[in-house]
Amino acid sequence: MELTGYGLTINDIERVVGGEKVSISKKAYQRLKDSRNVVLKYLDSNEHIYGLNTGVGKNKDRCIPKEKIEDFNRQLIYAHCVGIEPELSINNVRAAMLIHLNNMLKGYSGVQVAIAELLLDFLNWGVTPVVNGFGSVGEGDIGILSYIGLGLMGEGLVDYNGERFEAKEVFEKLGLKPIHFFAKDGLAVISSNAVSFSRLALLIPKIENLLYWFDLTCSLSLEALGGNITPLDNVVVKSKKHIGQVLSSQNFISALKGSYLLSKKTKTVQDPLSFRNATLIHGAAYDSLTYVQEQLTLELESSDDNPMVDIANQRILSTPHFETINISLAIEMLNVALSHVSNASVQRMIKLGNPDFTGLSRFLIADEHQYFGLQALQKTAATLDVEIHHSSQILSNISYPLAGEMEDRQTNLPLILQNLDGIVTKLQEVLAIELLYATQAIALRFPVNKPLGDLTGKVFQIIFDHNGTLQDHHKLYEVIARISKEIDRLCIRTLFAKQELSA
Amino acid sequence: MELTGYGLTINDIERVVGGEKVSISKKAYQRLKDSRNVVLKYLDSNEHIYGLNTGVGKNKDRCIPKEKIEDFNRQLIYAHCVGIEPELSINNVRAAMLIHLNNMLKGYSGVQVAIAELLLDFLNWGVTPVVNGFGSVGEGDIGILSYIGLGLMGEGLVDYNGERFEAKEVFEKLGLKPIHFFAKDGLAVISSNAVSFSRLALLIPKIENLLYWFDLTCSLSLEALGGNITPLDNVVVKSKKHIGQVLSSQNFISALKGSYLLSKKTKTVQDPLSFRNATLIHGAAYDSLTYVQEQLTLELESSDDNPMVDIANQRILSTPHFETINISLAIEMLNVALSHVSNASVQRMIKLGNPDFTGLSRFLIADEHQYFGLQALQKTAATLDVEIHHSSQILSNISYPLAGEMEDRQTNLPLILQNLDGIVTKLQEVLAIELLYATQAIALRFPVNKPLGDLTGKVFQIIFDHNGTLQDHHKLYEVIARISKEIDRLCIRTLFAKQELSA
Amino acid sequence: MELTGYGLTINDIERVVGGEKVSISKKAYQRLKDSRNVVLKYLDSNEHIYGLNTGVGKNKDRCIPKEKIEDFNRQLIYAHCVGIEPELSINNVRAAMLIHLNNMLKGYSGVQVAIAELLLDFLNWGVTPVVNGFGSVGEGDIGILSYIGLGLMGEGLVDYNGERFEAKEVFEKLGLKPIHFFAKDGLAVISSNAVSFSRLALLIPKIENLLYWFDLTCSLSLEALGGNITPLDNVVVKSKKHIGQVLSSQNFISALKGSYLLSKKTKTVQDPLSFRNATLIHGAAYDSLTYVQEQLTLELESSDDNPMVDIANQRILSTPHFETINISLAIEMLNVALSHVSNASVQRMIKLGNPDFTGLSRFLIADEHQYFGLQALQKTAATLDVEIHHSSQILSNISYPLAGEMEDRQTNLPLILQNLDGIVTKLQEVLAIELLYATQAIALRFPVNKPLGDLTGKVFQIIFDHNGTLQDHHKLYEVIARISKEIDRLCIRTLFAKQELSA
Amino acid sequence: MELTGYGLTINDIERVVGGEKVSISKKAYQRLKDSRNVVLKYLDSNEHIYGLNTGVGKNKDRCIPKEKIEDFNRQLIYAHCVGIEPELSINNVRAAMLIHLNNMLKGYSGVQVAIAELLLDFLNWGVTPVVNGFGSVGEGDIGILSYIGLGLMGEGLVDYNGERFEAKEVFEKLGLKPIHFFAKDGLAVISSNAVSFSRLALLIPKIENLLYWFDLTCSLSLEALGGNITPLDNVVVKSKKHIGQVLSSQNFISALKGSYLLSKKTKTVQDPLSFRNATLIHGAAYDSLTYVQEQLTLELESSDDNPMVDIANQRILSTPHFETINISLAIEMLNVALSHVSNASVQRMIKLGNPDFTGLSRFLIADEHQYFGLQALQKTAATLDVEIHHSSQILSNISYPLAGEMEDRQTNLPLILQNLDGIVTKLQEVLAIELLYATQAIALRFPVNKPLGDLTGKVFQIIFDHNGTLQDHHKLYEVIARISKEIDRLCIRTLFAKQELSA
Repeated sequence: MELTGYGLTINDIERVVGGEKVSISKKAYQRLKDSRNVVLKYLDSNEHIYGLNTGVGKNKDRCIPKEKIEDFNRQLIYAHCVGIEPELSINNVRAAMLIHLNNMLKGYSGVQVAIAELLLDFLNWGVTPVVNGFGSVGEGDIGILSYIGLGLMGEGLVDYNGERFEAKEVFEKLGLKPIHFFAKDGLAVISSNAVSFSRLALLIPKIENLLYWFDLTCSLSLEALGGNITPLDNVVVKSKKHIGQVLSSQNFISALKGSYLLSKKTKTVQDPLSFRNATLIHGAAYDSLTYVQEQLTLELESSDDNPMVDIANQRILSTPHFETINISLAIEMLNVALSHVSNASVQRMIKLGNPDFTGLSRFLIADEHQYFGLQALQKTAATLDVEIHHSSQILSNISYPLAGEMEDRQTNLPLILQNLDGIVTKLQEVLAIELLYATQAIALRFPVNKPLGDLTGKVFQIIFDHNGTLQDHHKLYEVIARISKEIDRLCIRTLFAKQELSA
Repeated sequence: MELTGYGLTINDIERVVGGEKVSISKKAYQRLKDSRNVVLKYLDSNEHIYGLNTGVGKNKDRCIPKEKIEDFNRQLIYAHCVGIEPELSINNVRAAMLIHLNNMLKGYSGVQVAIAELLLDFLNWGVTPVVNGFGSVGEGDIGILSYIGLGLMGEGLVDYNGERFEAKEVFEKLGLKPIHFFAKDGLAVISSNAVSFSRLALLIPKIENLLYWFDLTCSLSLEALGGNITPLDNVVVKSKKHIGQVLSSQNFISALKGSYLLSKKTKTVQDPLSFRNATLIHGAAYDSLTYVQEQLTLELESSDDNPMVDIANQRILSTPHFETINISLAIEMLNVALSHVSNASVQRMIKLGNPDFTGLSRFLIADEHQYFGLQALQKTAATLDVEIHHSSQILSNISYPLAGEMEDRQTNLPLILQNLDGIVTKLQEVLAIELLYATQAIALRFPVNKPLGDLTGKVFQIIFDHNGTLQDHHKLYEVIARISKEIDRLCIRTLFAKQELSA
Repeated sequence: MELTGYGLTINDIERVVGGEKVSISKKAYQRLKDSRNVVLKYLDSNEHIYGLNTGVGKNKDRCIPKEKIEDFNRQLIYAHCVGIEPELSINNVRAAMLIHLNNMLKGYSGVQVAIAELLLDFLNWGVTPVVNGFGSVGEGDIGILSYIGLGLMGEGLVDYNGERFEAKEVFEKLGLKPIHFFAKDGLAVISSNAVSFSRLALLIPKIENLLYWFDLTCSLSLEALGGNITPLDNVVVKSKKHIGQVLSSQNFISALKGSYLLSKKTKTVQDPLSFRNATLIHGAAYDSLTYVQEQLTLELESSDDNPMVDIANQRILSTPHFETINISLAIEMLNVALSHVSNASVQRMIKLGNPDFTGLSRFLIADEHQYFGLQALQKTAATLDVEIHHSSQILSNISYPLAGEMEDRQTNLPLILQNLDGIVTKLQEVLAIELLYATQAIALRFPVNKPLGDLTGKVFQIIFDHNGTLQDHHKLYEVIARISKEIDRLCIRTLFAKQELSA
Repeated sequence: MELTGYGLTINDIERVVGGEKVSISKKAYQRLKDSRNVVLKYLDSNEHIYGLNTGVGKNKDRCIPKEKIEDFNRQLIYAHCVGIEPELSINNVRAAMLIHLNNMLKGYSGVQVAIAELLLDFLNWGVTPVVNGFGSVGEGDIGILSYIGLGLMGEGLVDYNGERFEAKEVFEKLGLKPIHFFAKDGLAVISSNAVSFSRLALLIPKIENLLYWFDLTCSLSLEALGGNITPLDNVVVKSKKHIGQVLSSQNFISALKGSYLLSKKTKTVQDPLSFRNATLIHGAAYDSLTYVQEQLTLELESSDDNPMVDIANQRILSTPHFETINISLAIEMLNVALSHVSNASVQRMIKLGNPDFTGLSRFLIADEHQYFGLQALQKTAATLDVEIHHSSQILSNISYPLAGEMEDRQTNLPLILQNLDGIVTKLQEVLAIELLYATQAIALRFPVNKPLGDLTGKVFQIIFDHNGTLQDHHKLYEVIARISKEIDRLCIRTLFAKQELSA
């Protein structure tokens, strides 16, 4: 894959994280050099350039004489290694190096070319600095990216082939040369949001998958309920204009193709909102995800350098480009949207356990020799949902003036992403529980032939094959764990794609 | 203004609220009739149609015989008059009637034509039902719109020419005929989000104005600080891709035209983030507002009826159209964005009161005979900001299963709007305080000639003319109140527009 | 009532607010003088005493020469008039003056004696400064109490006999002499939490009443449900050790004396938690209220002066006494506790509308000619509950460094109290709705003789007499308003007291 | 240690967790038997007793015939194994078994005696069931305690001597007999809050230690600042009445014994609130912790059984005893209090890095060859503080009606405890950073002799010995990690106790 500084997609990121090799385009290479030359030109200027010949933060008023610049840059890396545990995943660091490298290629950073080349080597040879991931306030991941800086200097720990080494050892082994950070290099390496952006980039496909799973699972729940499919009617769908809702509706229709619901004569007059409004709820989550993706794309196409090099005019300019408010607001909206998805799922389970709505046994007890069914599992689901709710509360507007009041705001983007990450994990567990409820209800409703949709039927069968109809001697946590594994194993997007092909 | 069911804009709504007369287009009129005919056709059907020949909520299982339908519809209105105080403003009710009427014209509602006609009369003759505004959970403003239903029946209180009457009196006076609600009418009147949508529609222009004000005020603060305008450099602005940030940057440039800052030789190396990142912070608020507007437009073009009439196929269909999750999420994002705007403003005041950043006197004390300056006002601003912060916390995902578990989710849209409304009020007070700080700092920095931008200069002068340089014998609350009035009085958009014209 | 500086109770405050005259004890008077003498002694010292011969906040480094002290103090009052609207109630200002005066009597303030005397006159002659109430961050209500300072100077507006005058006019009329603020006076007048403490003091009895009302109403709901009273059994109550729960249980038993529930043979096996756990939920609210009261008592017995005069050692000492963290935490706990009370009430209504739990008609529909009953009212209750939930979110730990970073924390106590105030109002409306549900259920359960408890029966009858059994032609908001008035009118504590007497 | 059912202290719990053997007192043993006899008596009664001869939750309406009771109880355990990962720590499970066993000894549970005996064996022989810890809503840890039930049946996994085995193996090895759950046993085993209470019990001593550490560290920071100790003056301390504040003040005085601050002539007029108000802030945390402890003590002395056996009257009674609102509210208050402690600590660091307040170098840069000092570390601290803030938000009032609407409220106590646990971890990291700031400031302020307090001096030396004066080549995360280890290693309570002895 050739990197140009622009057009990097989430799919690209996934591929490089997965091992694909990268190179730098010729044009981008030229920009790297041109940009560096501007920096070097300013070495002898007496204009004060932030972080080039001045200190950083409140220390911007301090001059760095030319002969001290190398020392200054090395200290800068050390003094910013303030991130604490937990460590970032290897994938996260790889994606961060890719995004950061690609950003440098826009020609705004002015780093020495060797830094870009070494990042390239790190990616291509599988060398990944070990990075403590906690400690960024979201205005540049400076206390985190410093660990990558350390790695570029051949210091600290790195992962290589899945094992952990002193960077020095690996450099020797592979013949890599440590960087001697010089003018503006240190700041250019640490002043970026690449860690946060990469964490988000890796989460987005998971969230999209999860939403497809919810469409499918809710379709199965609708079959389990014997619900009303009128809200999926084309005329109904088209008289509401939200894009996500249209996508979700299509998924429902796709999943239910062949289902008995389509030809069911006596319809319920109306279903509970958690069923009836599901395409709008999931739709809002799709829309929020799209908004997040758009913001990420804008960020990946933007510079996040400060100061930035203006090659055309040979200037170095102070910028606000590390500011992450747009993407932070977007993710917080997504977090809330996902908490609605979770909550509606919990409400559907409750209905599936209620004979008033299903006509089936209470809590889907298998037979008269059983006494409990899935009642207790509601508590697990409710706890997950409260945790998700908690993770959806707003953090972006809690802020302290730091760095001598210079840095007087923050977005807490890394904490918001940590919440999103937690939500994704918990949401999959909620999903597994709804899937269990729906499967059990179907098993009870249709003891013999199961007139399900092609797609819902396929998923039902996979789940059902594990446990059959659940009796009270099943330990439910084992069942949930198995279902969660199936969710990981099955490629939901492919299932839907095949279904659409066959349509 | 001719209503067609589609294309209703916020500007249209403002005009009608302001007194412009409306009519119904021919096509729309036809749709009203066609839609009604479908409803009447079902009167003798034995298909169960929600709210037509069945009860509502959990009572959907109850049949309403034809001869009871009128009684049922009248009771429906009474039994849904559950909104409590505070009352909605006249403007809000007028806007709600307009939106609701326009929505009926899409032909999905199936109300009797006389209802649309009477709403038209209400709008054109200035008859406005008195509505208790508190009590909707955001899935249809059913407990609120019922008061408009009451008004249509010629009952309850109405405002007429700014006075309050028994509806009956005004009906007699104007020769209006009370509606006899019949098949589906009651439900069609109360099952809509028109109150919430109208409240939002009326707030949007205010918020936009406020954001323009913040651009201007922050520009003035930048002059007061003697700050660095590099972040407004065209190359910098273009290397970041957010739309709102570009708009905000243009406003800054527009406001600062002619300012000494443009030709200032020695620049500060970097300014605090509350200054440097202001265009991105305001930009994020513009972007959030745009997202909200898009959602509102989608809603105004959509049906929010349930059930809805499908004229083409002569059907009545169950829908989830009253669901407001999309717009609720969008507004919650906006609320958070506005809280960032507020917070950055408070941080700027703090800097303007700090000699380290301004070189001026501490807290902008006027002279050596004064001891306090604007110090205490920081507390007022901080309290406003905390209140705004509180109003930006998430409410949309707090929910209870109601109506016999049928309505098992809610978005709390009306409470979210109440928060937005509060934020707008408080934010204007924060703005007034920043304006005061900036004005005082300018007065101290440039005792004689004030080399300000054309636009910033104009606003400075207006504020300054009221108080001159503030001494400690001024009672600050009076000053703030005067500034707030000026903010209301001046049409900021026109100021900017003129400036652009002159450019 | 003679004020001594100590032992002031909530009941005392209520009495003085209600018009009772106050005087100052001899001992306290002596302390006032002794304390003032210490202040005057320091006038010629060259020790720096905060706010006496130095500026305030960050301006603590500035010296105030003796001849400027009067000017300094006058400016201090003006420059701190930064509170904005809404205004405080007359009662709140009167209570604040009382608490503040009483605190001065401890001898820590060192104000000139005339200030205490004039506050006394204000209280006794019904002169109440008009005070803008918004703008304190909870570390001393300095921007609010300044208005009382203004009043003491004979400036600004005052309320006198329910009318609003220029202070000057009233001073002339009554022969009052304006204070010339001198050494430390200004600071002593504004640096206190008297406004917040008084607001709380006035709310506490209302909350206690409300909790008694919930005990009674829940007892009635239990009769309406035909619930199980085993949780009120003496053995059960005693095997749990919380004090509030014991009080609540006693109230239930008291309210239900004579009820059919006591002799009911077939008991429900268990009731929903909102019924069964009610004494523990209400009990936790009582316990939280007790904790709040204890904190308030500690505060009323403490000094909140800074600096404070140490008469014994003739010193003036810097203190943290304006810090309100303890009471803020306590009130936030109470706010959460009250939100539990609200939520359980809403859940009980839902059960009372559900035939599965009551055996009565759905939503307590009066007869077969009615279609709605109290269904829609659930939405009003749910909205109130969400608002209460929102008001119970934590605000105390949102903070900004102000006053040149000197004041680098805040508790937002005034906003927390504003939330508490809102909760109390909303909670009464929730209560009214539960009372309506319970009354209607009783009316349906026992069409003829109503075998209720003595106390529950009495309250039932009062409510029932207004409306009889509710039909769907009742406008429910009118019913709720009437009930809310009855709640205000009836002295619940007296009802319980009588009942206990009769027992 | 002999267990009696009453008087179990946190210290007792720590000792048993640490390996101390337990026995059952004679009286308690008798109560176990008497209580069991009441249960067995009811076996042939036709009274419906919840969970004895009826189903649970909504299934309370279902009869369990005598011959099915054993089967019912076994299924109950299986069907409640719904807790998911993460697993509880061994210590937590041991403490839970102890608390649960002790509670059974009160005679309210009615379990078969063999259950108590086997729990005793588990404790004494070091057999600890493996328990999935996530999934309780705080109204009885039923989905969690079920795993202990499984262990008692000789099923599932257990930890034995630090290794994991199938329970069966360990039972065989040790000659333990699996329990055959019979009448009421299952419910008595799972319906308790023992897991939550034990988690809290194990956290309380850690929190108390941490608060002592903050007293000491803040004392050191005060020395680093050269601050004003007047707020510790006896007269000042006594004129405020909060108990925690008095304790904290004593600790400060104790820690500073011998310090130069005590005899420093020129005092700062006032210090920033984060210093000046520290004893009140820490004091509020002590007070909140005391309140939590009181609630825990009340709970440990109470029954949490439902239904409970009344031996005296030979009855089995329905109770609300599993309700945890009191303790949940208390912990939420503590969480907020700790977030204040954290925030004030961060504010103090900021001051220690600011020459205006210290007269030292900016960000405590070691010498003119260094450029950064501790600036970047502020971001780590700020991020920790925001995370703590997030963990202090209210969760107790988010609730869903579960179990067929029977369980219509929840407190989320386990999630609140999870938050508390996270706060404790993060708070220690904040503490370590303040300690680093204070140590560096002292090192710079007193290059040669360090005239510190006895206790502050001792701690300073330990920290200083690790790193000396920090230069910019130190990797700060390593320094923080070392300090955090020292915090763990040193017994702070003993340090203070020795100091007091020596006084």
